[in-house]
Amino acid sequence: MWADEQVLDDAIDKIRFNDQGLVPVIAQSSDSGQVLMLAWMDAEAVRRTLTSGLATYWSRSRSEYWVKGETSGHRQLVKALRRDCDSDALLMLVEQAGPACHTGAPTCFNTHPDLPLMADPAAID
Amino acid sequence: MWADEQVLDDAIDKIRFNDQGLVPVIAQSSDSGQVLMLAWMDAEAVRRTLTSGLATYWSRSRSEYWVKGETSGHRQLVKALRRDCDSDALLMLVEQAGPACHTGAPTCFNTHPDLPLMADPAAID
Repeated sequence: MWADEQVLDDAIDKIRFNDQGLVPVIAQSSDSGQVLMLAWMDAEAVRRTLTSGLATYWSRSRSEYWVKGETSGHRQLVKALRRDCDSDALLMLVEQAGPACHTGAPTCFNTHPDLPLMADPAAID
Repeated sequence: MWADEQVLDDAIDKIRFNDQGLVPVIAQSSDSGQVLMLAWMDAEAVRRTLTSGLATYWSRSRSEYWVKGETSGHRQLVKALRRDCDSDALLMLVEQAGPACHTGAPTCFNTHPDLPLMADPAAID
């Protein structure tokens, strides 16, 4: 138990949180590979996520911890959590129950038309 | 041409940049579905990305625009750029030339061991 706490502390210490104490977390479906959403965690949210196995974010709008799906049932069961090369972003592989987005869309990136891409691919050498 | 400018302006206006004028951008391989990296764009970087077709970020450490792969050749040819439901994060599908990470790893999330996941899946009902 003590050993586990130390392992957790050491791992969380390696994350570079921003000046608000937060790190952006990309949630990706471990089944489909779809990018589901981007949200934020502080150190305590990372700890809760790793110890509970359920994605737990920090809500910047409500200033509170937010177990994804706690009310909707659309939980994210965590399969893996990884930091990037410079440790200031996390990638989380999850089993998503139901739609990821509060709009009911499968992902938060399915709700608006694409931005207009105006480059001519033939002009890129 | 003028019509295009208006379409671009309108699309970029819909993005909610943070108080530093930046938005996080998730780059995902359009081929493999792998999440390659997370980086940042300001409005001008979004504009340059959409008009050039090459992923162009704002480097927070160097305070300059950064055409990904400009020196390494590991460019990202943009296939699509999408905002999320609340317009404060972007997902960019790219054709990645070579490794995405400056370490030489295929993605920036391949460079460290996973964080320790300590939940007992059987304990999650």
